[in-house]
Amino acid sequence: MKPVNVGICGLGTVGAGTFNVLQRNLHDIARRAGRPVRIVHIGARRDNPACQLDGVKVSRDIFAVVRDPDVHIVVELIGGMTVAKELVLAAIAAGKDVVTANKALIAVHGNEIFAAAEANNVVVAYEAAVAGGIPIIKAIREGLVANHIQSLAGIINGTGNFILTEMSEKGRAFADVLAEAQALGYAEADPAFDVEGIDAAHKLTILASNAFGIPLQFSKVYTEGITEITSEDVQFAEELGYRIKHLGLARRTEEGVELRVHPTLIPAKRLIANVNGVMNAVLVFGDAVGPTMYYGQGAGAEATASAVIADIVDIARDIDSPGLVPHLGFSVETTDLPVLPAEAMVTAYYLRISVKDEVGQMAKIAETLSMHGINMEAIIQKEAPEGELLVPLILLTQPVREKAMNAAILSIEALPAVTEKVVRIRVERLDS
Amino acid sequence: MKPVNVGICGLGTVGAGTFNVLQRNLHDIARRAGRPVRIVHIGARRDNPACQLDGVKVSRDIFAVVRDPDVHIVVELIGGMTVAKELVLAAIAAGKDVVTANKALIAVHGNEIFAAAEANNVVVAYEAAVAGGIPIIKAIREGLVANHIQSLAGIINGTGNFILTEMSEKGRAFADVLAEAQALGYAEADPAFDVEGIDAAHKLTILASNAFGIPLQFSKVYTEGITEITSEDVQFAEELGYRIKHLGLARRTEEGVELRVHPTLIPAKRLIANVNGVMNAVLVFGDAVGPTMYYGQGAGAEATASAVIADIVDIARDIDSPGLVPHLGFSVETTDLPVLPAEAMVTAYYLRISVKDEVGQMAKIAETLSMHGINMEAIIQKEAPEGELLVPLILLTQPVREKAMNAAILSIEALPAVTEKVVRIRVERLDS
Repeated sequence: MKPVNVGICGLGTVGAGTFNVLQRNLHDIARRAGRPVRIVHIGARRDNPACQLDGVKVSRDIFAVVRDPDVHIVVELIGGMTVAKELVLAAIAAGKDVVTANKALIAVHGNEIFAAAEANNVVVAYEAAVAGGIPIIKAIREGLVANHIQSLAGIINGTGNFILTEMSEKGRAFADVLAEAQALGYAEADPAFDVEGIDAAHKLTILASNAFGIPLQFSKVYTEGITEITSEDVQFAEELGYRIKHLGLARRTEEGVELRVHPTLIPAKRLIANVNGVMNAVLVFGDAVGPTMYYGQGAGAEATASAVIADIVDIARDIDSPGLVPHLGFSVETTDLPVLPAEAMVTAYYLRISVKDEVGQMAKIAETLSMHGINMEAIIQKEAPEGELLVPLILLTQPVREKAMNAAILSIEALPAVTEKVVRIRVERLDS
Repeated sequence: MKPVNVGICGLGTVGAGTFNVLQRNLHDIARRAGRPVRIVHIGARRDNPACQLDGVKVSRDIFAVVRDPDVHIVVELIGGMTVAKELVLAAIAAGKDVVTANKALIAVHGNEIFAAAEANNVVVAYEAAVAGGIPIIKAIREGLVANHIQSLAGIINGTGNFILTEMSEKGRAFADVLAEAQALGYAEADPAFDVEGIDAAHKLTILASNAFGIPLQFSKVYTEGITEITSEDVQFAEELGYRIKHLGLARRTEEGVELRVHPTLIPAKRLIANVNGVMNAVLVFGDAVGPTMYYGQGAGAEATASAVIADIVDIARDIDSPGLVPHLGFSVETTDLPVLPAEAMVTAYYLRISVKDEVGQMAKIAETLSMHGINMEAIIQKEAPEGELLVPLILLTQPVREKAMNAAILSIEALPAVTEKVVRIRVERLDS
């Protein structure tokens, strides 16, 4: 199929991330989009050492990308409101589809931009504007399309959540954590957008319009930041069974819609109360589906690029033909990646071994495991329950191939002190 | 715009849910789909008292729906494999798009069904087949399309998770909780599909193909159930800092793909370890986006209907024109739902009041709140810190209109014993 030609304006963090992910996953993306996605023009005031730009046309004037007849989709990643708005409107006027990650631009000028796009029969996509890599716009307006949405609540500013998490987990003071966040590069040098809730209000504005079918109304969001939260309040909240999170909340009531951003006590047992550090999450209540939640990185070069590229592919799938998504996600041939037999799988194990309560048994079992190349991470050895001769021995192993574990268990079960079958349950850290 | 005509085959739990949600949210769904979605024909062996079928054509022969020239989309909700497969293939042969919630059918016969669909240029959509109302298929093949997916892990059988949650939280035995789950209607009378992992293996098969671009290979999933898990193992796992969950896991390795369903120890601090009861969640690791997680109800009439209707609307949006999703999710006019001013918002409050350490102050504050119609839920009264004259008084109120709270706080701050500003943080239960 014919490639779709993309022009990227802006080669900062997100621009570089988008460029690099599109290059790295070229083949997968083409199989999923049904056509190659090709970067044909970059507009950037300067190159970014993170990107290998060989063979790509680069202009210092970003408007050259909009004027380029080869460019089908203009990706706006310059940020800010003035030039970005001009650029997006120029792209629309030139009949190009637009993808942007610019939440301020959409929240404040979205109504005007979308009207222009509809008049020119082009698309302006903005998944990356809210909650980084989490496909929350798609979830609300496609995945939950059947629902009368009642409310939504989101942790949609990673810096704010990092600060509150540190205050809660380590009893640190606000100013102290903010300074660290700035040093780590999470917070802007001027952190007002993060800690005063403006960034969250931008995102909430966009979420609420998609949930309720109302125009974008950024100026009507009640916005309160986290600058007044003290570690004292965090502690009292814990005592009462709550966590303090900076939430964006949108709720339908009989009278209208509440749009608000403020620090909020939420019951500690709620899943969203356990979303910590820089992570984002959005909880949505629909009348049919009930509660659903979406969790992931709300910022970062490649997480945001993930959403930018999803928008590009949505547009690419729709060119020439209806936007069919391949039945199993990938078009044309499927790969010949084999499914492994159970013996080839690698995982850590929990083992519970009932052993006769005699000296030296633990050593024998450890030796057996070691012979099969299996290392231990943790051991619990219990006293024999009153009147019983067997002691439960609990082991956590490091990851090992299933085949080795099968052999080790056979050897352990052959030991004279082991008279019952070894109980084994697999262990996964789920950290990658 | 011209309506899209839907025929529903099967009027059991999910069929009735789909019918009812489509009727109830008719207007919202039409605004989002860009055209009305109309049920024109129902095929069911018997009526369902949960549905008001007046004015809808009903056939006792479900194949009559497939033969009906008015029907554009056939929705297969009869379950099972034999007749369901015939029905879906007949619909495809008749040139109709198909929506199904049938995970067994897709996991086992999907390769054949999709080949037939592609040959006939129709769509077979199956969002509802995995994790009920959670839009996980859409997330993987559209939202995360930029990513080389490394692994995914899901709690994708609600009954199994309910059983393990009860064992973990209440120390109950497996057989005991299973009996309760059956009584509550969560588990089938023959619970093998749930507790032996077959249902989870069906869903994992579908997830893995979409994540990795491999054909459906149900027979190659290593599958282990939860019937051997004892409360003893649950307790030992807790001691080690883990929870036991029944996971479907798919992971790309250098050699191939691991596909496995088995009980798994996972670190208790992971968000997915805290997904309890009948809820489902799927954690996906992409190379660009990092970890993302999707949470919600994995079963139930209307939660599943939510996914069925999302598929119908995806197809409806694509008829005649590229499948444009409206910029703010809803087409044509936006509603005039007003955004409420801050004073009209209703929320509960946490108040921290610094009070002079004198008798009777608490009573005065309680009286003031009561005068403004504000009820209390909880109180913490602390001793004055050494050498300080002010005592912190912490109150949690019931939900109240912001305006009343503003007035109450002014009155409290006017009390002689209150010399500092009242600290207030809003409280939300986030349970609806």
